[in-house]
Amino acid sequence: MIKARITVTLKNGVLDPQGKAIEHALGALGFDGVDSVRQGKVFDVELQGGDKSKVEAEIKAMCDKLLANTVIENYAVEIA
Amino acid sequence: MIKARITVTLKNGVLDPQGKAIEHALGALGFDGVDSVRQGKVFDVELQGGDKSKVEAEIKAMCDKLLANTVIENYAVEIA
Repeated sequence: MIKARITVTLKNGVLDPQGKAIEHALGALGFDGVDSVRQGKVFDVELQGGDKSKVEAEIKAMCDKLLANTVIENYAVEIA
Repeated sequence: MIKARITVTLKNGVLDPQGKAIEHALGALGFDGVDSVRQGKVFDVELQGGDKSKVEAEIKAMCDKLLANTVIENYAVEIA
């Protein structure tokens, strides 16, 4: 079994209202030093299969088809 | 300026219906090898300040107060 962590983040320049809301909430809680917050998603996936390069290609396909919107999001894959 | 990435994941044993839905959606798309999916959140934060240990303590306070629900979630902090 292979464990992978997929991190999906918004591309630079894409507005992130959720991140902005968190930024303001942190300011309201007294954390003054916060310049910016951007929120993304992380997926911890467990897959069958031993061939790492095959699994990596499969995960990329998953990201392109379902997990990330590649128009506005980047993704990074870490295989443990 | 210090950049930090905070990764918030559900603790083991906590039900993750969103992850389960993604797992089923991947199966429906023909990805048969997926054993489990768990979804988490990632926050990319930019902070002022040069003292790394002080910033680290501030980030921990942010997580405990706002970013993570420590009853059901774990968090990890990476400072770049």
